[in-house]
Order: sequence, then C-alpha cells, then structure tokens
Amino acid sequence: MQQNYQQKTLGILGGGQLGRMLIQSAINYNIDIHILDPDPNAPCKAIAHKFMRGSLTDYDTVYEFGQNCDVITIEIENVNTDALEKLVEEGKEVYPQPQLIKLIQDKREQKQFYKDNNIPTADFILTENKDDVISNLDFLPAVNKLGKEGYDGRGVQILRSADDLENAFEAPSLLEKLIDFDKELAVIVSRNKRGDLVAYPSVECAFHPTANLVEFLFAPANVSLEIEKKAKNVAIEVIEALDLIGILAVELFVTKDGEILVNEIAPRPHNSGHHTIEANFTSQFEQHLRAVMNMPLGNPDLRMPAAMVNLLGEEGYTGDALVEGLDEAMKEKGVYVHLYGKKITKPFRKMGHVTLLNEDLDVLKSKAKKIKELIKIKA
Amino acid sequence: MQQNYQQKTLGILGGGQLGRMLIQSAINYNIDIHILDPDPNAPCKAIAHKFMRGSLTDYDTVYEFGQNCDVITIEIENVNTDALEKLVEEGKEVYPQPQLIKLIQDKREQKQFYKDNNIPTADFILTENKDDVISNLDFLPAVNKLGKEGYDGRGVQILRSADDLENAFEAPSLLEKLIDFDKELAVIVSRNKRGDLVAYPSVECAFHPTANLVEFLFAPANVSLEIEKKAKNVAIEVIEALDLIGILAVELFVTKDGEILVNEIAPRPHNSGHHTIEANFTSQFEQHLRAVMNMPLGNPDLRMPAAMVNLLGEEGYTGDALVEGLDEAMKEKGVYVHLYGKKITKPFRKMGHVTLLNEDLDVLKSKAKKIKELIKIKA
Repeated sequence: MQQNYQQKTLGILGGGQLGRMLIQSAINYNIDIHILDPDPNAPCKAIAHKFMRGSLTDYDTVYEFGQNCDVITIEIENVNTDALEKLVEEGKEVYPQPQLIKLIQDKREQKQFYKDNNIPTADFILTENKDDVISNLDFLPAVNKLGKEGYDGRGVQILRSADDLENAFEAPSLLEKLIDFDKELAVIVSRNKRGDLVAYPSVECAFHPTANLVEFLFAPANVSLEIEKKAKNVAIEVIEALDLIGILAVELFVTKDGEILVNEIAPRPHNSGHHTIEANFTSQFEQHLRAVMNMPLGNPDLRMPAAMVNLLGEEGYTGDALVEGLDEAMKEKGVYVHLYGKKITKPFRKMGHVTLLNEDLDVLKSKAKKIKELIKIKA
Repeated sequence: MQQNYQQKTLGILGGGQLGRMLIQSAINYNIDIHILDPDPNAPCKAIAHKFMRGSLTDYDTVYEFGQNCDVITIEIENVNTDALEKLVEEGKEVYPQPQLIKLIQDKREQKQFYKDNNIPTADFILTENKDDVISNLDFLPAVNKLGKEGYDGRGVQILRSADDLENAFEAPSLLEKLIDFDKELAVIVSRNKRGDLVAYPSVECAFHPTANLVEFLFAPANVSLEIEKKAKNVAIEVIEALDLIGILAVELFVTKDGEILVNEIAPRPHNSGHHTIEANFTSQFEQHLRAVMNMPLGNPDLRMPAAMVNLLGEEGYTGDALVEGLDEAMKEKGVYVHLYGKKITKPFRKMGHVTLLNEDLDVLKSKAKKIKELIKIKA
C-alpha cells in the first residue's frame, strides 16, 4: 500500500544544525518540514518548507505551530512541553513523548530516573541552593550541574575542593561524584512505534579541555568487545525504561575498573552521531525520521572507521564568520565538510563539523588533529 | 585565507531532481542556491534559497535570473545559451561554458565534434529531413536521432529496415550506425578552473526495453582492467577536447571486439552517477559544485559496489503519485530511497531512484530486480 508518511507534515521545534541535517535527510522522502525557531537567521530558515519565527518555550507559540503539523519532534530539549502534551491530547503525534522531554529537561529528575530504574550512574546528591552544596563538602570532588537549562557545556562545573564552593550554583542543582573515568563513550539507540529497536556501535568522545564540548569523536570506540556489549546493553536499558520513540543519545563513562555509568542522555540527533552521515549504513538523522514517522528502522552498522571534528568559533573572534583552511582540508580523500549556515561566530559556537573516513584509527587521530589546526572560524 | 565561494550565490537553470540533489550537497558549504524553472511545483521549489518561475529558453528570463547570481550552472541542457554568453561577457562565471552547452544541445554538432577530434564514435550521416533518411536505406540498421530537444529517450528511434522509414524524423537529424554492442558504460569526469581533473570508475547501464531510459545501473562495471582503462581515457579525451569546467557524463558503447565508442554526453550531474551519493567517496553532485565553484575536486573512488534502480511512473497511471512498497524495501540493509518530490506521476516519469550497496555484484543484481518489483509509483 501507499506509504502515508509521505503525506504527513513533520514539525521540528528548533531550526539549528540538527534540524538542518534532518531536512537534508527528509528531502529523500518528500516529507514536508515545518520549523519553529526564535532566530530569524536560523540555519534551517532557507531550506524548510515552512519557517515560523517564535519562542520554543512559549505555550501559545508552540501550540499554534503544532496545529499545522501531523508529527512533531525536537532538535533541542528546552521547549514548552505543556503545549506538546495538549497537542497529543488533540491527536497530534509528538516524539519523543512530551513527558520524556520534560523528564530529560531536568537533570535532577534524569538522575532520579536512573536510580529508580537501577540504571548504573554516578552517585549524586540533589541540592536546592548554594548552602546545600557547601554543606556537602565531604562529597567533593564532584560535578555541580544546574537542574535546568544548561546546554553545550554551560550549567556544569567541577568542584574539586572547598576553594571552589563559592562558585556553587544558587539554583536547584545536582552534585555528582566526580568519576575518574577511563573513557567517555556515546551509544545512540532508536525505537519506532512498532517497537523496533536498534543500537549504533559505541563511539569515543574527546572533550575540549576548557569548553566542556566534544572536540573529537572516534568511531568505533577503542574498547573490548565486553565493554562494547555492556555499553550497548545499558543504552538499550535506558531507552526501554523510558519507552521512548525516536532517537536517544546515551553518554557513558567507562570507569577504570570497566564499569559503565550513564552520564547524560539526549532524546534527539546528537553531536556524537554526526559521523553516521558518511560512516554508517543509516545516518542518525534518517534514523530519527524513520523512528518518529514510524518507518522501519535502518541498519546502524559502521561502513568504515571515522573521526569527527567539531568546528568551533575561534576564541577571540565574534562577528561575521570567515572560514579559513577549507580548501587545504577538502583536498584529502575521505574528508567531509559540514557548515551550519550560521552568519555570526562566537567563541566555541558550533559552526560546523568535519567527518574523516579511514580504515586506520591511528591515521584518523592524526588527520583529525591536522584538520583542527587547518580549519579556523574567525571573524 | 577565507574561502570566498561560501559568499557566492550559485544559480541553477532547472529545478528538477538534479537541482534538488545539488542543493542537498550545497547545504554543507553554505552556498546559497537560486533556481529558475517553469514549473511552479518544481522539486527544488521549497528548498532553494530563491526560486524564480520562468522559461529556461527565454533570453530575457535567463538573463534576468543570472543578474542575481555570481556563478551559474545547469541541470538540463535545453536553456538559452545566448543569454548565458551575455552574462559571461558581463563578468558572471557560467559553467559548463555556454558555447559547450550549445554544442551539446545539438546531437549533430556533438557527433561532428567527435569526428573532428578523433574521438571514437559510431559512423553517422547528417540528415535534413525524412527524404534524406529514406535516401540512405543502405545505411540501415541505424539509430535516427533528432538534432535538438530530444531527452529522456524522446527524439531517438531505431530504424531497422525499409518498413521503419515512414517514422524517420522530418527535422534536421542524424542517422547513426546501429552498434551491436556488448555493454553500455558511463564514465563521469570532472574539471575545475584550476585544471584539476578526476574520472570516476565506469558503471554499467541496463536500459528499459521500450522506454529507452536507464532502468538499472551497476558499479563497478563488470569489464576487464583494459576496457576500464580505455573507457576512462576516452572520457578524459572528451572533457579535455571540450575544455569543459564542471562535470561531464560520457555514455559509451563497448563493442563485441572490445572497442570503445562515445554514444552521448551530458555536461551536468547525470542519472548514471546517482549511486555516487552513497557508493563513492565524493558524490557527483558535490563534485559538480566543487568544479563550478573552483574548489579542489574530491576523490572519485568507489567505497562499495552499488546498484541503482530508477523509480519510473508505472504505465497506465497519471495523477497524484502514490508510492507502493517503500516500507518493505527500507527494511533491508544498504537500501537508499531518493524521492524527487514530484506530485504528479506519468508513465516512465522519473519519480525517484533507489541505491543499493553490497559487496557482491550478483546479490546486487537480484536485489535490484526485487526493488523494481517491490516499489511501484501509481496514482
């Protein structure tokens, strides 16, 4: 029979680079994409079938946007979930489910959820204010995380000793045992309404020393089969416990004694899956579309080892973005440039990424560092 | 230094599936795409930065369209080349070069060009009208091709015997010796302004028995290294003889005695290169962008053997397109669906394509046939 998802309109809350790459995939299926974003120059603006400028956190705006869509999804968690719940009541399909977005928006609820579901995660204490944190001096060294609205490294800080306590968050937050981890992995899992479930091979993330952003990613992760299996199983546990429909990126710590702990999750395409566009049989963006539109899920296998380099706005430059070094980088075999169409650069702003393909993981590591040196986003 | 091509606007004459796939690639480089097409529902309409409705063959329309672009290219040959030559005079960059588009528009001039440049091609006679053809009865069996405006199989017919002569074209055309070929290959070559040149591995085309359209494509072509080398060399000879900037698809016959003859050429992304999106290190669409924007050319190597199946409108159906069998097809590993966003289907209209990846060419052949049976475009 005729596949009715082609006649459905998919609304995406957020019009940034994730929405932009979702649109690139949706074009292959004739799916009309509507975008809601507050930025009149959002990366999705020119390529969306319909672009509505407006607040993602305003009830009326989100509710009105959803009226013209059959299916609604997100590319950022900070959205008005009450409006989404209302849309579900009125028969719209919203994936990930609004109550799950709400749960994940609050890192405190997220952590409690892991605990309640026996999902391995670092020990933690919930704190309501700065004094709460100070009263837990003996819990240090720890990571102090704002409950809500932290993103791209903001709202997260390490408190190593009493001297750091003055920086403790005054708002409801979370104090998490600092894990002396061996590696940081990410596993992307996906489920559709039919209940199909697939897990991507784990990837290894290297974070920027100061910006607390992924700087490099390597796929596959350089771990034992046993760790790989454990990591996948934990990610599957999480998506099943949530009963989530869509894609879920699960960030994991591998401790020195081979334990797997869930760090954080994102119920949408994620930076740790950008390489899948060229490196895997099915990209995370197509997979998310397949999941939320209830198509069959695609095969997640890796076609070739890959590295991903985030192109972050250079420190000390703010203004109209100028990209340096692209030509030199593009000459190489297996180098894939993705620019996000952002006119303005700021220090550490995600302006694009580059994926590298090569059979040899060591070659990938040196090439990734070379790309990082070569391409600079200035103003 | 900063790569100025990101600030250039690329105008494309034609807003069909080729333009649509060019846009999918251009998004990665922040290149603004303007589209000119007479169809208000052209596949590019919703995803182009600017869409202008108008005739591709009208001087004033093409000239006006070009005013707002820095670089202009085509996705169909039947355009007004006088307007393009005027735009070049006024400092616009137009690739492929207008005089080459003009040459290729006329299959008679095309053939004469091969002859003048000692490029191997089937013997031919130029005919001005039906009587000319009839007076060349002894040249049969032959292929009778209209000089101008034949496309997607139209304007081409086989004249086997005297009985067929009544169908001979009344317009200026060409009578080409019918080649008893062993295989039909296509080789895509590309050149940029810097003079870099790359050639893709040859592919094997299987045509539809009646519609004279590519039905299946297999990459790599199942030919000897010697034939592969010969085919590439001929394709390189052609692009160098033309001094063309952009991408050039060269359709070739391999005769029973291993001779390579040029059949036809297309100075743009071509149906014989659709598989390169998933199967090669650089897709033909990105390669065309790189060439016309004078970026470094990308590596053309095959990553994995592939088959491509054209999704043609089913015979007997005209109207709002309904796609059957997608779900079943999408379940398989290494199956890539590309729908072109055409609302209306007609018999043999190109509505989309599917690329299949698999290490085994025999598996690809059987899977390609299965996809053909599975996916039907009806109304």
